[in-house]
Amino acid sequence: MKKRKAAPRRNVIYGVHPVLETLAVGRRLVEEVFLSRDPLPEWHLYALLETAGIPLTRISALDLGSLALSPNHQGIAARVGPFPYADFEDIVPDLATRKGIVVILDEIQDPANLGNIVRSSECLGADAVILTQDRAVPVTAVVEKASAGASAHIPVARVVNLVRAMEQLKEASYWLYAADARAERDCYSTDLTYATAFVLGSEGKGLRRLVREKCDERIAVPMTGKIGSLNVSQTTAILLAETVRQRSTRVPSRGSD
Amino acid sequence: MKKRKAAPRRNVIYGVHPVLETLAVGRRLVEEVFLSRDPLPEWHLYALLETAGIPLTRISALDLGSLALSPNHQGIAARVGPFPYADFEDIVPDLATRKGIVVILDEIQDPANLGNIVRSSECLGADAVILTQDRAVPVTAVVEKASAGASAHIPVARVVNLVRAMEQLKEASYWLYAADARAERDCYSTDLTYATAFVLGSEGKGLRRLVREKCDERIAVPMTGKIGSLNVSQTTAILLAETVRQRSTRVPSRGSD
Repeated sequence: MKKRKAAPRRNVIYGVHPVLETLAVGRRLVEEVFLSRDPLPEWHLYALLETAGIPLTRISALDLGSLALSPNHQGIAARVGPFPYADFEDIVPDLATRKGIVVILDEIQDPANLGNIVRSSECLGADAVILTQDRAVPVTAVVEKASAGASAHIPVARVVNLVRAMEQLKEASYWLYAADARAERDCYSTDLTYATAFVLGSEGKGLRRLVREKCDERIAVPMTGKIGSLNVSQTTAILLAETVRQRSTRVPSRGSD
Repeated sequence: MKKRKAAPRRNVIYGVHPVLETLAVGRRLVEEVFLSRDPLPEWHLYALLETAGIPLTRISALDLGSLALSPNHQGIAARVGPFPYADFEDIVPDLATRKGIVVILDEIQDPANLGNIVRSSECLGADAVILTQDRAVPVTAVVEKASAGASAHIPVARVVNLVRAMEQLKEASYWLYAADARAERDCYSTDLTYATAFVLGSEGKGLRRLVREKCDERIAVPMTGKIGSLNVSQTTAILLAETVRQRSTRVPSRGSD
């Protein structure tokens, strides 16, 4: 294999989990995979990838870093198609058929937060993550790396009009909870076994007024301590975990629906 | 005020919360505060800081970035003394007097994770965070920024011998839970109302064998989904939140001790 020029920088993902999960799920074009020439713990991937019929190129770790625009590539990167966002209109009918869990993010700015939220959402049973199209971080390679491959599995949709999407979820019988540290009601005394959507605001500004007002209720994660402010990705994880807890213990018959 | 040369780069913290909480708590030397010359939403801080008697210097946002080694300075940085780690030997006697909550981190590598764990720990009632001295990220300015000022409040101790520290906590009647996604027992069926220590492993390698074996029990945060792997900072937040939940609802009489 001869050394190649770096591929165009758009649509390069990196890291063991993002690349492997994208390949495993198979709903996104993978044009070429780049592996570090240096031996790595994951070196057995080489054979695995070859059998998948994807063109493989071995380049230096330094070139991988340039391609990934990050030193955290773990020896692997891939040139891929655009991130396959879900179409919100497509997923609403499915969500309407069951007591799903939806995570709605109002203008989240930080890629690590978004990645961690996507990761927690996938691990803790959420059915979809909804993002605002504008003034929010999209699903970048950094987000996909932080999501540890979860972004390849869980539907992530972007919508122009978040309030309209929230109305559609209401019509589909979802109860919309605004996460708000100052809310009087806490998540533990709230029944989360119905179709549930959590609405979380951006790191600096919280929820926009119209988004907050569209929610059915505000709920808090109870806190002690002095600073009284959890990171939005931690708040999301706690709300989702509490939902899992309630659904595994409160529902009379598990697996009956 | 005339323009000054950048201060030495060691021991510079930045961000509104880290600087203000450090000043408010008052247990760490603050030599000088640097504020951006450009108007900022937090501009009222200027008057606040002046009354604290700390030397103030106004520099350009660019110089602030150079001083903080980060663009995320939010217009404020401070030259401070070393981070005031708690001495583990000093805090153990206090922990022994009550049903505390301790977070033990075995060689955590990522500063954002550590910062978020310190933040969640402070917000969710943990009494201390214990780090390994070696092969772990210390409390850097990046960690303090991610902690949103929590690092100024909650005791953070570093120990050379983590297993020995765990033994001391056991002697102080703490029950040591290793967080392990594959454990059969889950956190919701575990009584966390006694003196509790959560032991969490590093991002890549998990818990070292001797550390894992020193724990009394392994517990999992139940997950669904495909990837089955939460970020360590999300796992910590969920375990702490569950502890808060149990202690606020299961203890017969709140506030009686």
